[in-house]
Formats: sequence, structure tokens, C-alpha cells
Amino acid sequence: MFHHVKELQFNARVSHPDPRFAALLLEQFGGGNGELKAAMQYFVQAFGARQAYPEKYDMLMDIATEELSHLEIVGATITMLLDGINGELKNAAESNPIMKMMDGKTPKEELIHQALMNPQFLVLSGGNPQLTDSQGTPWSGAYVNANGDLTVDLRSDIAAESRAKIVYEYLQKFTDDPYVKETLGFLMTREISHFQVFQAALDSIQPNFPPGVLQGDPRFTHAYFNMSNGTDARGPWNQGQGPWTTGEQWEYIEDPLKQVVETRGELDKPVVGAGKSPEAAHKLDKEMSRKRSTEVKSAMPKGDNQWSTYPQESLQSPKSAERS
Amino acid sequence: MFHHVKELQFNARVSHPDPRFAALLLEQFGGGNGELKAAMQYFVQAFGARQAYPEKYDMLMDIATEELSHLEIVGATITMLLDGINGELKNAAESNPIMKMMDGKTPKEELIHQALMNPQFLVLSGGNPQLTDSQGTPWSGAYVNANGDLTVDLRSDIAAESRAKIVYEYLQKFTDDPYVKETLGFLMTREISHFQVFQAALDSIQPNFPPGVLQGDPRFTHAYFNMSNGTDARGPWNQGQGPWTTGEQWEYIEDPLKQVVETRGELDKPVVGAGKSPEAAHKLDKEMSRKRSTEVKSAMPKGDNQWSTYPQESLQSPKSAERS
Amino acid sequence: MFHHVKELQFNARVSHPDPRFAALLLEQFGGGNGELKAAMQYFVQAFGARQAYPEKYDMLMDIATEELSHLEIVGATITMLLDGINGELKNAAESNPIMKMMDGKTPKEELIHQALMNPQFLVLSGGNPQLTDSQGTPWSGAYVNANGDLTVDLRSDIAAESRAKIVYEYLQKFTDDPYVKETLGFLMTREISHFQVFQAALDSIQPNFPPGVLQGDPRFTHAYFNMSNGTDARGPWNQGQGPWTTGEQWEYIEDPLKQVVETRGELDKPVVGAGKSPEAAHKLDKEMSRKRSTEVKSAMPKGDNQWSTYPQESLQSPKSAERS
Amino acid sequence: MFHHVKELQFNARVSHPDPRFAALLLEQFGGGNGELKAAMQYFVQAFGARQAYPEKYDMLMDIATEELSHLEIVGATITMLLDGINGELKNAAESNPIMKMMDGKTPKEELIHQALMNPQFLVLSGGNPQLTDSQGTPWSGAYVNANGDLTVDLRSDIAAESRAKIVYEYLQKFTDDPYVKETLGFLMTREISHFQVFQAALDSIQPNFPPGVLQGDPRFTHAYFNMSNGTDARGPWNQGQGPWTTGEQWEYIEDPLKQVVETRGELDKPVVGAGKSPEAAHKLDKEMSRKRSTEVKSAMPKGDNQWSTYPQESLQSPKSAERS
Amino acid sequence: MFHHVKELQFNARVSHPDPRFAALLLEQFGGGNGELKAAMQYFVQAFGARQAYPEKYDMLMDIATEELSHLEIVGATITMLLDGINGELKNAAESNPIMKMMDGKTPKEELIHQALMNPQFLVLSGGNPQLTDSQGTPWSGAYVNANGDLTVDLRSDIAAESRAKIVYEYLQKFTDDPYVKETLGFLMTREISHFQVFQAALDSIQPNFPPGVLQGDPRFTHAYFNMSNGTDARGPWNQGQGPWTTGEQWEYIEDPLKQVVETRGELDKPVVGAGKSPEAAHKLDKEMSRKRSTEVKSAMPKGDNQWSTYPQESLQSPKSAERS
Amino acid sequence: MFHHVKELQFNARVSHPDPRFAALLLEQFGGGNGELKAAMQYFVQAFGARQAYPEKYDMLMDIATEELSHLEIVGATITMLLDGINGELKNAAESNPIMKMMDGKTPKEELIHQALMNPQFLVLSGGNPQLTDSQGTPWSGAYVNANGDLTVDLRSDIAAESRAKIVYEYLQKFTDDPYVKETLGFLMTREISHFQVFQAALDSIQPNFPPGVLQGDPRFTHAYFNMSNGTDARGPWNQGQGPWTTGEQWEYIEDPLKQVVETRGELDKPVVGAGKSPEAAHKLDKEMSRKRSTEVKSAMPKGDNQWSTYPQESLQSPKSAERS
Repeated sequence: MFHHVKELQFNARVSHPDPRFAALLLEQFGGGNGELKAAMQYFVQAFGARQAYPEKYDMLMDIATEELSHLEIVGATITMLLDGINGELKNAAESNPIMKMMDGKTPKEELIHQALMNPQFLVLSGGNPQLTDSQGTPWSGAYVNANGDLTVDLRSDIAAESRAKIVYEYLQKFTDDPYVKETLGFLMTREISHFQVFQAALDSIQPNFPPGVLQGDPRFTHAYFNMSNGTDARGPWNQGQGPWTTGEQWEYIEDPLKQVVETRGELDKPVVGAGKSPEAAHKLDKEMSRKRSTEVKSAMPKGDNQWSTYPQESLQSPKSAERS
Repeated sequence: MFHHVKELQFNARVSHPDPRFAALLLEQFGGGNGELKAAMQYFVQAFGARQAYPEKYDMLMDIATEELSHLEIVGATITMLLDGINGELKNAAESNPIMKMMDGKTPKEELIHQALMNPQFLVLSGGNPQLTDSQGTPWSGAYVNANGDLTVDLRSDIAAESRAKIVYEYLQKFTDDPYVKETLGFLMTREISHFQVFQAALDSIQPNFPPGVLQGDPRFTHAYFNMSNGTDARGPWNQGQGPWTTGEQWEYIEDPLKQVVETRGELDKPVVGAGKSPEAAHKLDKEMSRKRSTEVKSAMPKGDNQWSTYPQESLQSPKSAERS
Repeated sequence: MFHHVKELQFNARVSHPDPRFAALLLEQFGGGNGELKAAMQYFVQAFGARQAYPEKYDMLMDIATEELSHLEIVGATITMLLDGINGELKNAAESNPIMKMMDGKTPKEELIHQALMNPQFLVLSGGNPQLTDSQGTPWSGAYVNANGDLTVDLRSDIAAESRAKIVYEYLQKFTDDPYVKETLGFLMTREISHFQVFQAALDSIQPNFPPGVLQGDPRFTHAYFNMSNGTDARGPWNQGQGPWTTGEQWEYIEDPLKQVVETRGELDKPVVGAGKSPEAAHKLDKEMSRKRSTEVKSAMPKGDNQWSTYPQESLQSPKSAERS
Repeated sequence: MFHHVKELQFNARVSHPDPRFAALLLEQFGGGNGELKAAMQYFVQAFGARQAYPEKYDMLMDIATEELSHLEIVGATITMLLDGINGELKNAAESNPIMKMMDGKTPKEELIHQALMNPQFLVLSGGNPQLTDSQGTPWSGAYVNANGDLTVDLRSDIAAESRAKIVYEYLQKFTDDPYVKETLGFLMTREISHFQVFQAALDSIQPNFPPGVLQGDPRFTHAYFNMSNGTDARGPWNQGQGPWTTGEQWEYIEDPLKQVVETRGELDKPVVGAGKSPEAAHKLDKEMSRKRSTEVKSAMPKGDNQWSTYPQESLQSPKSAERS
Repeated sequence: MFHHVKELQFNARVSHPDPRFAALLLEQFGGGNGELKAAMQYFVQAFGARQAYPEKYDMLMDIATEELSHLEIVGATITMLLDGINGELKNAAESNPIMKMMDGKTPKEELIHQALMNPQFLVLSGGNPQLTDSQGTPWSGAYVNANGDLTVDLRSDIAAESRAKIVYEYLQKFTDDPYVKETLGFLMTREISHFQVFQAALDSIQPNFPPGVLQGDPRFTHAYFNMSNGTDARGPWNQGQGPWTTGEQWEYIEDPLKQVVETRGELDKPVVGAGKSPEAAHKLDKEMSRKRSTEVKSAMPKGDNQWSTYPQESLQSPKSAERS
Repeated sequence: MFHHVKELQFNARVSHPDPRFAALLLEQFGGGNGELKAAMQYFVQAFGARQAYPEKYDMLMDIATEELSHLEIVGATITMLLDGINGELKNAAESNPIMKMMDGKTPKEELIHQALMNPQFLVLSGGNPQLTDSQGTPWSGAYVNANGDLTVDLRSDIAAESRAKIVYEYLQKFTDDPYVKETLGFLMTREISHFQVFQAALDSIQPNFPPGVLQGDPRFTHAYFNMSNGTDARGPWNQGQGPWTTGEQWEYIEDPLKQVVETRGELDKPVVGAGKSPEAAHKLDKEMSRKRSTEVKSAMPKGDNQWSTYPQESLQSPKSAERS
């Protein structure tokens, strides 16, 4: 259950209306890397973690809730940046002041002039924020990544926080309002904190590479296919040990077409660079399968199922329901 | 700011997994009339009301917050209905039990078989809910209606609650699980309550018809154009007084093509049925413009602007910011 | 079947091209509250009403057809507002006049300059309207609400008309062209008329509350959950009788967390405020189910089925088909 | 203006409900090649043609109107194929017959069972058609192609009719109902007719190749780049005269990488195969620019502008408005 | 398999940054008629042709690959047109130069000012192209038309090339940069070439009309329904022989409503204008069905299936797989 | 420029058609974590890296090209899994075999029966793959994350590879075909390789935390807000040093509402846990700004700009164009 606290988490203020910046800021309200995306991503992931990993559930819900609180901060700021538009629109019988204004020089005229760069504020939302990005594209449920595996989900979350951070960084270039910069600074910083929370949570799961349960086929894990002609860049991403464990190294396939024909489309390719055989990989697959499926299945109640207890006294849940 | 309470607002339970019903229930998780749509619609509307109509702001935020809490109930129920899928997927090295199962007869086989009707649970979400409707279409910010005028927004809300209610009504036909029916009954009922809240709030604003500020042109308000041939239905929607005030009545235009030509495309059409002249309507426009724009403008602080005070001791807000 | 009449329903005129207003006006051509949405919503709803409620079918088709006629008026106006763009584009070999123009002062230069605010007119549509909103987002079938129940659909329609009305009201602030204002005034007024048509049609169905067939659970219908901290607004939406029938009243739940724990997630909550027991509600459910399903089922022909007769001499339909 | 005729253009009938085929048929109601797409494409294109090419405007509006009439036929057929679902849903208090039915053997049970393959009919539309394709994806304004040039638009239309035709051809494989097959046969045939209408209209515009105004650069028009390795297919599309005028022929570039380097990224490429020089092409550009821009500009009234006259006595329009 | 060649197919250059034109040019990067759409359309169609029509497969893949190479040219040009934005954004600690700049006069200031017309470059992509159109709408898989029949697909391709051509034609009006115009001229010309390739390929398939396998019903193929009132345009699209074979001609239905009633919704309509009887059409259907299904089925290997051989020595494929 | 090699990178084979698995596999063809998303994400990112980080450009284009090659493998596999559908559809005159088949027992019947679970193969694509996910939702450009900063983009890529990997892992549970499993194994393994490539590339950029240029505000970086009631989970993500450098640690805010009020919405919050002061952070901001903007700006040619040289002899580029 959620509870709304009237105080904003951060004391959002603006010095004066600025519809143009309001439009840019929509990117973090209804955009693909914005606060609603973050809130919904962690919220949806939390359901899947609830049963077998209640500690991660608690963490995901904490951050989802904080992101909802940030969504409120962003919406409040946009609303204050649009102040004046709604009052002007309500003066509906005054026949054409806005059009005249657009060639004018006074602050009110400038206000409307700027707003015309994002027409939805004027003709659709009436001075409200909207769940679109800065270009007017509606928010989409497809922005949310939740795939039922924490070693995947937490990496999606680290990436999401990275993108949210850079968008706040970019946004700061487009306002001079010290109050707004202050709010952006807070929000940008919180993305960094959440990045670290997710990194720590990921580190607490072992092993977490490769993501998921299955190992890769050692014939193909260490190969780098040079898919382009001419001078090629070499570096730790395609030569030497790179990020592999000691004794392992990259295999650089200089001429993939030749290699593909010679290996009958990789069917005949040997293991190069990897430290284990296909058989060893398969053995690991079985161990990991047993480990992960046991973790999940053992946390599942038999028979019926109840999400919360009243009061919820421990993290563990859901429980088998008490039949009434 | 939001706060998460670990107890669900309603004690959601399920008797046994049922992936097929989970798929149907997605309609209320990530569908166009579902809980996220409701939560976001009232939340977004609330920003616009905050300044001039703080009482309505408080109400909209209460209900937005309750809808978020319902979203959680729906997500919890879907997750419990999908129990078993994640554990099966984690058993990744076990090479093909699921395919074999699909022709089988045991409950586990049936479980997976049903899930194949909604493949995203199996190959994308890994047994999590997803922000899509029952057909897999992602949730869209375009579902949210917020137009900066409470006489419009509250009508959008009454309609939204009506649609949410009927979807819960339909859903009840597709489950036999008494626990799930119990939860659906609670959620359906709350839509009725919210309908009544919004109706009362709309009634408390006077006048609220027509929505917005401007009157209609009396030449066209009372006309019903019969746009089809043959036998036509007549009723209070196109004859007699209908929903108009005493002394007014519908004007039925039997042959619109003839009428359009005769009136030079309505330019020469007289007032029929309406109780006031264009001049009287225009006078009302001016009065309403003054009233509504004054309400809004007078609530706006001069200069800078601060959304909350700490603590927030009254409903009024935002305030002029204290410069630091 | 539809028939096209070359005369517009309203004599749409423009004084001079104005691409910027053309872009704003797209909101009512291809936007979420525009004329295509309205036309398609009533058209789709009409199919469902055809059988059991032919009088409502006739009304819905009349208004759908009028909205299509309005879509044509809006498209014609946009086209006239864009006059000049296509001719300029056809002068394709003239290498760079438009770029030069953009810094210029003559009306033609200004025309193109304005058009750059909505680039699709220049590089995609070649001076045609497009089925997008004012921000370039394509029209979506998801805008259409049709749920197979007139007590729901008509409320969706009242809300849709309210939104369309306010968008026309807002649009009028952004043009000085008396011809265009005249057209907007007509279109805005017709939304008010349709609002009243739908209101009257809804009133003619009894009972129409709650929407759909089922009653709410009396334990939850009258409860208002105060989901936020601090000073709370009270009014007819959460205290006293409000919109309920005599003898009934709101139940205000001051502290939902406490209440949720005490009622074991509402399972133990008593009826407060409502005028009927759960049993009485259930009895009403059965009566309404019988009534509504009988209305629908009795209107359905046995065996095969034919939509129209030739000529269609009465409202009733569809009929059992005459086998050839 | 549009007028609705109660008789369907084709006598749509069904022998018995078939929700599964109703779901497939949605492809032509709200899908990318369906009737709404066709209606809207020709309707939107018509606006652009109205002024300079009123004969084509008349044709486009005739066919747009017929496609709307086909949309109605498709919607009526879907509705009849879903008969029974709405009546069953209205029987809402009957607690669980549908779930029981799903394992049953009677026709009614089978009906619902089939409907579960397209859940939106059951839980969202209540037995109505919906503006989605057969997979539940909402119709999009992006389906509509209208680019302000008839030599382009008519080719878009020929392609659109081809796609609509093949979808009707495919659909016929999935129904045994002789009535439904009859209707599909009519609709498929009309797509062929429209194909021919558009072909004739395109042929009546000369020259119509290349589409638009400008010629191609003769250095690049006749070149075929062989972008793949190994055995390559040769045919009239990359050797000999192919579709070019006499004396012209394809230039086959066997090894594009070599050619690109040798021509400094095409900058030094000579004319091969084409019958005219860049200068001659440029001269043609100027002639066509003059011709097409004159056609368009000369049809444009000076000053204000009125779409229709009352009555509309000739094809020509719009006219300069009579100031009132 | 694809291989990347570092040299662009055309030597793309720009004289100076121009973010406004970069935004317009996005239409061909991520828009509905742009290079990705073309590349993906031919690529997807190629799969379906691979088996029965390997020569067409080779051609479709050649052009798909060239369109990918054009996508790269467009992306490179947009990137160069945005040069300077990323460097400015990286100077993140410099607190407000960009806002100040917006009122300034130097080229750098102008650069940013222009960029504000397309905010995604500044706050989302950081100076990168994005897969959206010029209005910010994301590219959609729905742009791709591939229907499993070359007589349909090639017509979709001719139309797609026509649209791509006109968009490049329009774009040329909005830049003065001779380098950019040079690149646009190359790309526009290649669309003309591809148009001709597809036309030749279509001509090489006989018969190719009507598209697909089935003939139309001769009662309806030649009918033109005059769906509008008033003066109507007549021409080769609705009178005389038009595009039909000798001895055939259009049937003009002056008053469709009357005709529909008289023919009982077309059931009783005779053949007029067409040169063959329904029986003859049906015979042709059977012949074409046999021909086309034989072509496809005979190209299909029995049992298992392998897409490529290593090396791929002939066009034919896929083959039956050699079991390992 | 791209070049197509007729041999697939992996020898894709299938044992027999399986339309149901073809539908699931669409998730990796046109889904949000599929091969087109990967190819386009790295391709779009590459443009931004081209200038200042040509080594990363080379790597991104290599992997983009490999992902395109994987898209081809997936499309080829889907096509082979759908073998038989197109041939059946071409037999169009055979009136109703498919419907009859659906109750049958032979393999061909079963084939079509399965295909009905994904109707687009039958009525839209004619047996081709389509650019949708497994639920029929079209691929969207919004799936692509490219934000103009490699410390962000590479993290988006690591997450994308993680998601692609888990989807291949899940898919393997739903096929028994050893050939298909072999192909899925190869594709899954390559995602792991790419994960490592991106990890190594990210590690080669120092510093890479926080992503982007700016430090966080030390008052807020180390704070964890406990946004929920009841028992809370503690771990390295909210207590102790966690992922921070030595001497730093998390600050746990037990009661955020109280803290928010006491700090006036964080304005008065002191630094806790972080190892540096706001001033030190600001100094770092300036250093990083200088470093990163210099890297980018110094790589930019003055004046005009040319993407490739012919031949491209080094990685560096783009260059100043040689004026012709």
C-alpha cells in the first residue's frame, strides 16, 4: 500500500516561469529514462523478487517509492515553470491577446511565445505536465525492463540510472534558474546513489556472471569477430586476457568470412582462449540450475498463497493463505 | 513524497496458479482502463489543481495513491497466479521438460500449456507481470487525460471509473478461484466509490456546464442533425426538452443537406430551441472568464515559487519561496 | 453505407495562410480528443448497440457521421492554412529560396518560417494535414473507448465531448482570423450539443448507476481512504451524504494503515454508511443480470444472421438471414 | 459532409458465431492494411488534391467513402461473429458458468473457448469490434501515406490495394461459412477495382516518372550495386535495357567496394547507361518545376479562401471567400 | 552474414553544422519512409523469397544492403551537422553558457539556438542521431510491409521508393550547403534506380495482375461507385476501357443507394463491363493456385532444412540439412 | 558501407516446421531485447563515438554488424520453422482445407493449428517473419539507447546483452529440435562475449564513475532513504562501506518524513558518509569538464567535414573535407 506525504522529498522551487525549460524537463517526467520509467521498472521487478529474495524486494520497493517521489518533484517543477498559462487560458472570452502578444516584448508575451515550442501545454494540457517526453511522444510500458532474474534486472537498473544521470547532467546546461539547478542537482545525485545501491546488490549475488543460469558454449565465448575491413582497433576488448579470468584470452577472428566457410558455419570450430571445455560448462549449467531453481521453488508455499500478513512482521512472504 | 506500506490494502490471495487468468488480469495492470492509468491520471491532474483548488488537489492525490495501491494488489495477484513458472525456467539445464509437458496431463504441464497463450510471461518477463494489456500492447501515456480544467477532468475521471468497473465485472466471469473473486470484488467496488467521489466533487463546482469557460453558440447548441436515411429513432436526445432547462428544446434537422445549402453552411442559421441569444451567451462568457481566471491568478504567488512548506501545515500552496 | 456530400457542414473559410495555427489545429484532426477519435468511438460503439438497442444505434451513427463531417471541416481548414507550401515545394529546381527566406521579412518568408515549427508539413506531407496530434504523435486506435455497455459507453462519450470542447476553447486563443474563429466556434458548440445528446440518452436508461450490471460490495462502496498525511480537505466527496441516496453517507477512514491491519486487509470490515446489506446487493445483481442479459439475448436472431434488409424499413436488426 | 445510409453496401451475413475468425478479421478493421487505413489514406490525400486537381479529389473522396462503407461491412460481420458474448457477459451474477464451459462440449462452450484466443473481446470490448489488428495492436495514424504529390500518392494507393487484396485472399482460407466467404469475395474484388482506378488515374498524369518533380542524377540512375558475394542473379532488373527507354541500359557494378574507392565515394563516377547528361536532367528539372508549381499556384485563390460554395455547383474549389 | 566497409558508399560531407537541418533529415533516418524502413522491408521480404524465388532473394538482399549503407550515410551527415553539441555538453561544469548564448549572435550561439527546435539532440541523444522521425516519433516495425507474395511486395516497394524519393526532393529545399545537397542528390537518385529495379522484377513475373493468386468476382471488378453528390469527375478511371483489356470497360454506378437496394446489397448484381464470367474467373483461380503453390512447394526440401551451404555455391536454397 | 555475405554466420538448421516456436522466437527478431535492437543500438552509438573515440567506433560497428548477422540467422530460422504455410496459402482456390484441417490429426493440420496462435503469420505476413515481438507489438526505435557518452552507452550495452542472453536462455526451454537448440546456444553465447567486450571497453575508460562528467552532491550521494514501514532489509546496499571507496559509507535514513521536515526538504542536510566536500566535488567537475570537452573538441575538424577518406587508411576521422 502507498501513502502520500504532502511535503516533497526535496524543496522544489522556481524563480520564474520558463515554459521552454518545462518542455525540456518533460524528458524526465514522461520520457524513456525519466522518473516514471525508473519507478515502474523497480516496482515491477519487485514482484518477481518478493518470494525468493525478500531482501532485494525491500530494496527495490524502497527505490521505486523514492522514484515516485522524484516524479512528483519533477511534475511540481514543471507546473511551477508553466505558471501563468492556465490563468491566461481561463480568460477565454478575451478574444485574442495571446496572438497579439506573440510579437510583443513584455514578460507575459515572452512566456506564451516560448510555450508555442511545445503546443501541448497550450491546447491540450492547459498548463499541466503530460506523460510524454520532450518531443511529445507518450510514455510507453515498453520502457520497463523486468526479466525475472536479478542478475539481469540489476544490470538493467544500473544502466537505467546511468542514463537518467546523464539526462539530468545535460538538462543543467539549459537553465539559469538557481532554484531549478538546485533541484536538478539533487535528482542527478540520487541517480548516482541508486547506481551504487544496485551495484552492491548485484555484487551480493554470487556468481552473477554470466547473467542468468547457463554458461556460454566455450567455443564461442572468447571469440571476437572482426566484421569490418581496413585498419582495426585492438585493445583489451579483443586481445589478450581482457576481462577474462587468468589463463583465458580473446580469440581474434581476423577474417570471419573465411572462418565461417572453413568451420561450416561454426559447427567445426574448436575451443580457443576459453579455460573450460563444453563438458565442464555443461556441468556448471546443471549445478547452477539446481541452485537457482531450488532457491525459487523452496520459497514457494504449497497450495494457496497470500501476499501479506497483517501486520507484516517479517520480510518473508508470500505465505500459504489461511482459509477463512 | 510517497511512503510504501508493506501490507497490501486488500488481502490478496490465490488458491492455485492460473496463467491464463493472469494474462486476462494484465488488462487492469498495464491496460488502458487499468490501475496505472487511473493512478497517473489523477496524479497528473492534481498538479494543475494544486494552486487554485487545493481541496481538489488533496482528493485527487488521495485517490491517485489508492490506485497505486490497487496496482500493487493486481500485480501481486498476477505474480501469485504465475507461481511456478520462474522456478521452472531457472531449471534451465534440464533440457526439454516443458515441451514434453505440453502434451501431458499433470497440473504442472497444464500450467505451462496455459502460459503459452501469453508468451511474454515465458520468454520475456520470466513469470513477472508486465506493463502491457491482455494482448501484449504496452501501456501508453496517451491513456492519461488531464486538460487543466476540473469540469473536464472530473468527467474524464467518472468515465474512467466506469470503464474500470466494467472490466472488473467482465473479469469475474473468467475465474472460479474464490480468493481471486474476492479481490476482484473489492477492486470493482472501489471504482464505484471513486465514481461517487468525483461526481460529488464535480457537483461542488458551479456552474459546471458546459465544461470549461465558454458558452456554446445558441444557434447550434440545441440542433440535432439527422445524418442518416430511413426510419429514425426519436427520444429525449433529439426531441422535446431533453436535458435542457425549462423553456428550451431540441431542434431536429431532418434533412441536413438541404439545411446546409439553405443556410450557406450554417452562416445564416437562426437560433431555435435555445433560451438565450448569442449576445447573452457572450456576456456569460465574459463573466465566467473573469471568475475562473481570477480564481486561478489570485492563487498564484508573485515572483518565485515554492511547492511545499516544511512541515506543510495547511492545504494552501504553492507559496512564494523564501530566498536562501 | 456512407455517402459524401461535397458541401461542408459548416462554411469553413480562412483569411490567410497560418502554418503555425495549422499545426496547433492538428490536435483536433489526429489528436486524442479530436474529430477522428470521436467519429470512431461512436461508430465502434454503434455496432454493439445495433441489436438490442437500435434507437441508440441510430443516435450513435448520426453523431459518428457528424463527427466525420467535422473531421472534414478541420482538414479543410488546415489545408487552407497551409496554402502556399505545396506550390513552393513543387518549384523544386529553384535551388535555395526557402533557406534564404527564413531570414527575410516578406509574408512568404514568414510563412515558411512558421512552418518549420512543424516540419512534417514540409518534408513529409507536402502541405497536407496528417493524422497526428499537434506534436506529431500518430493517431492511435487506443483512443477509442467502447466497452459493450451503454451505461459505460455514454459516460465515455460525455467525457470525450468535454475534452473536445475544452481543446476548441483553448485553440481560440491562438488565432486572430475571424473566419477561423467562426469555424472553431461552430465546432466547439457542437461538442456541447453532443454532450447533451449523450446525457439524455444515458438518463433514458434506468437504472444506470452503478455502470454495468453488478452492484458494489456495500462494505466498500461508501468508504473514503485518506491516503495522505497532514491537513486534509473535507467536502461532499468524503463526508456526509454526498451523492448517495437518503440515509446513506460516506465513511471516512482517517488512518488507512491502521484500518488495514485491524481488518486483516479489509476481510473483517463491516458495512458502514451504505443502505443495503451484501445480501441485498447480491439480490440486485441477480435481477439486473436477468434483465440485461434478457434484453440482449432476446434481440438476437436464432441461427444465421443478416445485418440489413433492403430497403431497411425499420430500426430493428440484425435479422435472421434468408438463405438464397 | 457525410451521410449515413442504413443499408450496408453489401448484404453481410453470417451462418453462426465464430469468435476465432472474428479475431482474424480484425486485421481488416483496425490493421495496417485494413479498411480504416484505406479510407483515411484517400481522405487525407484528397485535401491536398482539392485545389489543383479537383477531378482527382472527387475520385479520392468517392473511394474513401466506399472504404468507410467497407469498414462498416467488416465491423458488422465481426459483430455478428461475436454474437452471444455480450449476452453471456451481461449475465454477470451467474458466478462461473464460463469457466466451467471451457472444458465442455456444447456449442456455447466452444464459442467462449475460441474467444479466449483474443481476450480483448471478453474483458475489454464486451463483444464489440476494436480498432486493433488481429494481434491486438491499435490502429496507427502512421499507416496513412499522403505526401502532397499525386504521382507518389497514387503509387502508395496501388500498393495499399495490393496488400488489402492479399489479406482478403488469405482470410478466405480460414472460414467455411458461405455467407462470410461471399462478403470477403466482394471486399477482395473491390480492392482490385480500386487498384485499377488508381492505375488509370496515375496514367492520366504525364509525365509520372520519376515520381515528384526532379529527375535523378544520370550518373547514378542506371547503376545496380552488387552488394553481395558469391553467385549473383542477373535479370532485367540489373542487366540490359530493363525498364529503361530505348538506348538506355543498366550499369552493373560488380565490386562496389573497389568502385567506391576508385570514384572517391562516387564523386568521380561518370554517366554510364543513362541517355541524358546531368545538364539535360537539370533542364528537365526546371521545366517540370515550372509546370507543376504553376498548376498548383494558379489554382490558389488570392487572399481569403472558402472550401465549398452552397450549393457546390462545379468541381473547382476552394474559392476566394465572400466577406460577410 | 554482413560485413562493414569503413568507406561510406557516398562521400558524405558538410560545410558547417546545422542542427535545424539535422532535425529535418531525421525523417530519412528514423522516419516512416526513411532508409531503415527501406532496408528492413526488403530484408524481411527476402526471407520469404529465399526458397522459391532465389533470384529475387538475391536482388532484395542487394538493395536491403545498399539501403543499410544509405542509413549510414544519413546518420553520418546528421552527426556532422550536429558537430559541436557534444563538445559543448561535455563542458558540463561551465554553469550556464548555453542559456546566455541563446540571446547571442555568434555562430556557436546560433548553433544551440537552432538545436532547441529538436530538444532530443540536447537532452537525450547528446548530439547523436536518434531512431525517430523529424517530429520525434520513434521508428516502428509497422512501417515494414512484407506479405509473402512478390506481386504484392514489389508494389509495396515501388510505392516505398516513390515516397522516399519525394521526401529527399522536399529536403533539398531546406539546405544551402552544397555538400549536403550533393549527398541528398545521390540518395534521391538511388531511390529512382531501385524503383526501376522493382518495376523490372515485377514485370518479370507473369501474370502479376491481380496481385496474389485469386481473380476478382467479375460482377464487381469493373464497377465504379459514385459515392458523392453534385458534379462528378469522369475520366479513364471510371469510364470507357480505362486500364482494362480490350473489350472490357468500366461500369459507372451513378446512384449507389438505389443500386444497393435494387440488388439486395449486390447479391443480385449482374456482370457488366468485365470480359469473363464468374465461372471463367474461378477456373483461372484454380490454375493460378496450382501454379503458385507448386512453385513454392516444389522448392521446399523434405524433412529437415538448412539455410546456407558452406561455401554457398549456387543461388538455390535452403537445402535439406546433412545430419551430423 | 555494408556488404552481404550469402553464408550465414552460423549454420542455422531446423528438423521440422514449428510455427508455435517461430512465434516465440519473434521475440529476438522484432522484440525489445532482440537482434535488431542490439544492431541499431550499437550502430547509432557508433556515430557519436566516431570522432573522438575511433577505437570504440570500430568496436561498436563490428558488433553492430555481427548483430545484423544474427538478425539474419533468427529470421532464417523463423522462416524455416514456418515452411509449409506459404505453399498452403498459395493454394488459394482450394476452398476450405485449412478449416477442416484444424480438427484433424495429420502433421500438416497440426502445423496450421499451431500457427493460429500467432495469426499474423497466416493473414498478414503469409509465412514471413515480421518486425514484432512474440505478442505482435511492432519494434520501436524507442528500444535504442544512445546518449552521447560512452560511460553511459557501454553500461546500456552490458544491460542489453544481459537481457538478450536471458531471453535466449528462456527460449531453449520451448523447443526440442536439436538443430534449433544448437543455433540458440550459439546466439546466447555471443551475447556473453559481447557483454565482455563492452565490460573491457568500459574499463579502458578512466574514470568511468559516476557515468558522464559531473560528480554527485556529496550531501546526497551516500544516503539511503528507507521508504517503507516495518521490518527492513539491511545489506551492503544500505549499510557499511558497500561499493564506496575506503573511508566512505552509506548513510541510512530510517525515517525519511521526519528527516525531510527537519532539513527543510534536504536544503539543510549535512554531508554524511561521503569522503569529499561539495567544494572538492565541484573542483572535480571542472577538471572532468575540461578533460572530456577537450577530448571531443580537439577531435573535431575546423570548418567543413568529411566522414571517410578513400581508401580509409586509418581509424581517425572525420576529416576536414577537400573542397572540390
